[in-house]
Amino acid sequence: MRKSIAIDMDHVLADIEQQMIKWYSDKYGVQVEAETLKGKPEQEAFPDREKLRDLLFMPGFFRTAAVIEGGIEAVKQLSEDFEVYIVSAAMEFPQSLAEKKEWLTEHFPFISWKNIVFCGDKGIIDTDFMIDDHMKNLNHCKGRGILFTANHNANIDYDVRVNNWKEACDYLYQNR
Amino acid sequence: MRKSIAIDMDHVLADIEQQMIKWYSDKYGVQVEAETLKGKPEQEAFPDREKLRDLLFMPGFFRTAAVIEGGIEAVKQLSEDFEVYIVSAAMEFPQSLAEKKEWLTEHFPFISWKNIVFCGDKGIIDTDFMIDDHMKNLNHCKGRGILFTANHNANIDYDVRVNNWKEACDYLYQNR
Repeated sequence: MRKSIAIDMDHVLADIEQQMIKWYSDKYGVQVEAETLKGKPEQEAFPDREKLRDLLFMPGFFRTAAVIEGGIEAVKQLSEDFEVYIVSAAMEFPQSLAEKKEWLTEHFPFISWKNIVFCGDKGIIDTDFMIDDHMKNLNHCKGRGILFTANHNANIDYDVRVNNWKEACDYLYQNR
Repeated sequence: MRKSIAIDMDHVLADIEQQMIKWYSDKYGVQVEAETLKGKPEQEAFPDREKLRDLLFMPGFFRTAAVIEGGIEAVKQLSEDFEVYIVSAAMEFPQSLAEKKEWLTEHFPFISWKNIVFCGDKGIIDTDFMIDDHMKNLNHCKGRGILFTANHNANIDYDVRVNNWKEACDYLYQNR
């Protein structure tokens, strides 16, 4: 039986950090440099946490995010050899549900609707691997957690960390 | 630790059969009697399976469905003693995502967004119990499956069947 992988969307497939910087600048006229985000939770890294949160509810925010480098090719390759599920904690932002589904259809058309999960708490997701940028998700995952590097998690110590999709694939193929 | 339950939406919390009959009549002028649905897959029970499927993509279809009798009180009670997740295979009908979230917010406001899952295949959901009206979901569930009676599953033989929310609660409290 093929091993299963739950792959997070924000910061893992979708470049939400770049999107936050761009939209914060466009909407509020304040330019935040990516380097200053390193090692800080996002809500502390931007000047105003409420304003940052407001962005996440604005139409188009999730829909127009860029894809993280190498993500499409990696997920396409992994889909050949693993049971790949895209698992996003999208339920906190209900308006994002349709946008996230459309975004996946545009960028990852080879992922079936059967393999997409929008949830809140990821604690009931049971897969062999879970790739995520947040410890709150990895802490309760039932399989092998893989921390995907983002600036906000730079200072977190975790036993399996990958810095990009090349490293993620290398790890998964070595452990399948 | 509290035991967990995955509760399906369509035919378990939302009265989709009644909604199909009503909308089929309203849109196509053909009245289908509930009794004729007994023991048949829905797509065979209505005169035209394509027309039936079209209904599922119409705006408002899921949003305006009635709640199955006793569902609200039962889920409220169960939430006191179990970890309750609402798990719907909504991903096949992307336009239903927002409608289903709104429907839950209206009728089940006591269910946190953290406990809602919209997925395709339910095979990666790991809960102690799963209440569903479809064998395709129960067949792959990792915990104890509970078949919730609907006309379409009347002829299916399954070891744990409940006919209404009263029976579902009785079973769950006896086995918690």
